[in-house]
Amino acid sequence: MNYQKILQEIKDEVKPILNKGKIADYIPALGRVNPSHFAMSLSLFDGRTFGVGDVEHKFSIQSISKVFTYSMAISHYEKILHKRVGHEPSGNPFNSLVQLEYENGIPRNPFINAGAIVITDMLNSKYKEKTFSKILDFIKSVNNNQNINYDKEVASSEAEFGYRNMALVNMMKSFKNITNNIEDVMDIYFKQCSISMSSSELSRAMLFLANHGIDPITKARFLTSSQAKRVSSLMLTCGHYDASGDFAFRVGLPGKSGVGGGIVAIVPEHMSICVWSPGLNSKGNSLAGTKALELFTTKTGLSIF
Amino acid sequence: MNYQKILQEIKDEVKPILNKGKIADYIPALGRVNPSHFAMSLSLFDGRTFGVGDVEHKFSIQSISKVFTYSMAISHYEKILHKRVGHEPSGNPFNSLVQLEYENGIPRNPFINAGAIVITDMLNSKYKEKTFSKILDFIKSVNNNQNINYDKEVASSEAEFGYRNMALVNMMKSFKNITNNIEDVMDIYFKQCSISMSSSELSRAMLFLANHGIDPITKARFLTSSQAKRVSSLMLTCGHYDASGDFAFRVGLPGKSGVGGGIVAIVPEHMSICVWSPGLNSKGNSLAGTKALELFTTKTGLSIF
Amino acid sequence: MNYQKILQEIKDEVKPILNKGKIADYIPALGRVNPSHFAMSLSLFDGRTFGVGDVEHKFSIQSISKVFTYSMAISHYEKILHKRVGHEPSGNPFNSLVQLEYENGIPRNPFINAGAIVITDMLNSKYKEKTFSKILDFIKSVNNNQNINYDKEVASSEAEFGYRNMALVNMMKSFKNITNNIEDVMDIYFKQCSISMSSSELSRAMLFLANHGIDPITKARFLTSSQAKRVSSLMLTCGHYDASGDFAFRVGLPGKSGVGGGIVAIVPEHMSICVWSPGLNSKGNSLAGTKALELFTTKTGLSIF
Amino acid sequence: MNYQKILQEIKDEVKPILNKGKIADYIPALGRVNPSHFAMSLSLFDGRTFGVGDVEHKFSIQSISKVFTYSMAISHYEKILHKRVGHEPSGNPFNSLVQLEYENGIPRNPFINAGAIVITDMLNSKYKEKTFSKILDFIKSVNNNQNINYDKEVASSEAEFGYRNMALVNMMKSFKNITNNIEDVMDIYFKQCSISMSSSELSRAMLFLANHGIDPITKARFLTSSQAKRVSSLMLTCGHYDASGDFAFRVGLPGKSGVGGGIVAIVPEHMSICVWSPGLNSKGNSLAGTKALELFTTKTGLSIF
Repeated sequence: MNYQKILQEIKDEVKPILNKGKIADYIPALGRVNPSHFAMSLSLFDGRTFGVGDVEHKFSIQSISKVFTYSMAISHYEKILHKRVGHEPSGNPFNSLVQLEYENGIPRNPFINAGAIVITDMLNSKYKEKTFSKILDFIKSVNNNQNINYDKEVASSEAEFGYRNMALVNMMKSFKNITNNIEDVMDIYFKQCSISMSSSELSRAMLFLANHGIDPITKARFLTSSQAKRVSSLMLTCGHYDASGDFAFRVGLPGKSGVGGGIVAIVPEHMSICVWSPGLNSKGNSLAGTKALELFTTKTGLSIF
Repeated sequence: MNYQKILQEIKDEVKPILNKGKIADYIPALGRVNPSHFAMSLSLFDGRTFGVGDVEHKFSIQSISKVFTYSMAISHYEKILHKRVGHEPSGNPFNSLVQLEYENGIPRNPFINAGAIVITDMLNSKYKEKTFSKILDFIKSVNNNQNINYDKEVASSEAEFGYRNMALVNMMKSFKNITNNIEDVMDIYFKQCSISMSSSELSRAMLFLANHGIDPITKARFLTSSQAKRVSSLMLTCGHYDASGDFAFRVGLPGKSGVGGGIVAIVPEHMSICVWSPGLNSKGNSLAGTKALELFTTKTGLSIF
Repeated sequence: MNYQKILQEIKDEVKPILNKGKIADYIPALGRVNPSHFAMSLSLFDGRTFGVGDVEHKFSIQSISKVFTYSMAISHYEKILHKRVGHEPSGNPFNSLVQLEYENGIPRNPFINAGAIVITDMLNSKYKEKTFSKILDFIKSVNNNQNINYDKEVASSEAEFGYRNMALVNMMKSFKNITNNIEDVMDIYFKQCSISMSSSELSRAMLFLANHGIDPITKARFLTSSQAKRVSSLMLTCGHYDASGDFAFRVGLPGKSGVGGGIVAIVPEHMSICVWSPGLNSKGNSLAGTKALELFTTKTGLSIF
Repeated sequence: MNYQKILQEIKDEVKPILNKGKIADYIPALGRVNPSHFAMSLSLFDGRTFGVGDVEHKFSIQSISKVFTYSMAISHYEKILHKRVGHEPSGNPFNSLVQLEYENGIPRNPFINAGAIVITDMLNSKYKEKTFSKILDFIKSVNNNQNINYDKEVASSEAEFGYRNMALVNMMKSFKNITNNIEDVMDIYFKQCSISMSSSELSRAMLFLANHGIDPITKARFLTSSQAKRVSSLMLTCGHYDASGDFAFRVGLPGKSGVGGGIVAIVPEHMSICVWSPGLNSKGNSLAGTKALELFTTKTGLSIF
């Protein structure tokens, strides 16, 4: 298939909606992004890559970081992880406290904020003061690239305006589902959300998940096949907040979005994809990014269904 | 792959848990089923079939009927269907009224009871007094088998004890999301839940969904490729009530369960499967059936992830 | 105190807001009422009565009927009544199903629809097919007046459009908190809501509650002192749906409103009051009626606080 | 009436249930209280007082402090206060976050934790760093007694284990309903909950509320008559968390309880009352204290209904 031509067509087709989305503006550093950015990158198992648009422009990965931290946690805590966080779709907006309260501080899944915070708490129990650098190391490894860091301004803004997340972590602490110091856990969490990566980097970093846990190029194993399947199934059922069903419906690939406008997706046994466009739809997912992925599966016939 | 051998192994391995589940007993006719039944059937595209256990024993398909009625509705109402019923996981037990009330009478998806009732109402608008016979006709067609009927005793018990469903339909009517007479709609709905089919019949009946909407044997087209993909994605994200994430996690196939103990699943572009064991787990899905499917994907490596 | 003068002042002061409320129009027969009606009546223990406006105009008492049926039920079922219906404020709009579901079919109190339906079910268990005529007899007795009946057109409209109430009763039946036939219970319930009374009649009918359960004029005892206190306390905490706190705050008297625009209130050991104006505020209580009662307690200093 | 004799009878009658309640043990300093304590105090307008039991034993007033801070706030912010906190019963356990989230960070009333924290935030806007000393001053004034302070150990335990309250305040901050620094507000809030007072002091301190806002002994005015009526009506409808209706039902007086085991109540135009017994019922109110007040209104006939 001529992937480069397909990507170019997609870029042309989404152009009219690039400015229709809404930039996440809950923190100033995110709100300053130019809404007309667009990038789409593919990584194949044989090392070939394809891309259109601002594929080297770094942006805030935000919730996409949850895929990395969950992958780290499942490799260390496979047996016990799901006693502290479920794996069911949440059926509610991504920051809802309601469900958390009814379910005694056990978040529905690791891809809503509350669940990701529990995962960070678990990593903090294992790696102590080195936790954030271990998270960065993991991302550098799966990306086979040392040039990854976080944006200090975004991280400090997250901390300054993160009242919702502070509410979540305090409630979970009241249910004893946070074991470390709240400030420590949230410092790491806000940093991981503030990691900056480009579309081409994120696409590369997902290859191991498309290939049963093994980087198809370096041959490094990061997860067992069963663990990789679990991450993928969660991406499909829970990767897009309250629009996960819609994404499965329209795109048909495991994916994960972030409010920075990035979306990663995998075609199992074929490739990994990243698309970036900062304007969000009403559910908090990239408007043009979702459309681009829908066009991609329609044009290529690649879908898990 | 030696499917017959794999099925036999699975049958042996689930034997110890056959009596550990709980039979659905909200209506007497369902409660009388022998809990030690087990059947598992596969249907391949080339016409070969495999099976172990009571594969010809007819049981109440219950919520599996929702796959058929949704398939019928999507082929007629593709554009407008999702104004009246969503396609997001419900995140709540399958019979909850809460979400329905907060969301103004629009059910979360067509596989929870409320959503399936709306689908039946849509079919009733199209087929009037012939609606139930049209549903039976559709199932006979996809099954390539005229010998399908419903169990009158189960249907009348459903109607007699269906207070929850009567609450749901009345609430949706108050939100004007039911357009026909409540009694007519519920009569059809209770009958469709009471259809009796065997494991081998249900497996055969799902083949068209595994093959992009076309029966691979008769070559009859029932849905467009895009419509079939939508049914499959809904089965994956919403097919098992509040355990849909768990099913995706453990089995990794689009599936749909019913409280009669049946579960259907598809391996896209490969085969369709039905397993039956009447004992249910705490989420209302067949206990041994879920385990059997998990063993199947582990043993065969067949999974969409 | 010159009550007649005070009533006249109130009538003048509320005149500008008479047309600001919204007439209940969920059934046509209610929607046809002229919004400029206003009536206010007082009944004293010595038999004196005062009134302004359309004090003899009959209107639909609607939820005010719940005071009568609860009074009947508490005198027969005092010990067991509150196992089937609570006595806490509901903290939610009056027709919410959410709380009912979370609390296993036990309504929060007898003055929300669900609770009143349970009360009617209890009376139905006692009086069988005579239940509605017994309710009418009770109202005639406390009113010392045989000229009370219900409006057949309103009752049949209630039944025709009462999907919410049908949802409530079906859900409670699913929790086994309705013991009689649903159709029988709802036929009585819709009739009791459709009883027509005038402001002067309703004021007279509440005298026994202001006097510890004894009609101060005829000396007939309808409730024990303790039972009368319970009815009054419920009127204070739960008498105005989701605006009960606001009513206690602004008026400071036990009261009960209905969507027909009537409100009854009592000044314990002093008098009973009825005010009627069909325009409702956003909470479903008479807009001018609530204002009139607030003016009344401000002008007279009569309040329980 | 022979109040002393009545109090003595009550003390004897509640003795068997003194050890049946559960001591609040969420913080160690509270958990160490001896459960067999009991005290009951009355304060009359003419200066006479009556008491039985440990009437001079100081205990943690906890949520009773909300009556004082709300009284302070309503005298300064009468017009705008209820834009930031409602006056409806909450219909949910006292620490629920659910309702707060659905209602955009506006607490239901000033007597649930969230509402009391908003009130403290309002006082903090007015009194800045002097806020807590102003609260103490107010209590000393209404008590006509300089010997009131807070328990530093309890306050620091509240802060250490107050995750629920930290969740509440962070959520309200995310809705912009907290205007000051979270740490400052919570420091004051935890201190006000930790104020220690005896039964005789608390009874004395409530006299102004029983007398339309004026201390009947010193003649000092603390609130207007209308403001005092508002505090009383809130005590009646919202004073006992999710058992406010039950308290109105059984006792029939405006009251406010705290998890330290204290309950204050007023008989408008007659007297104020305090009862203390540390064992709590399942709703978090003093078990023997509630019973004692029920016995008191039954024996004296004093009730607002």
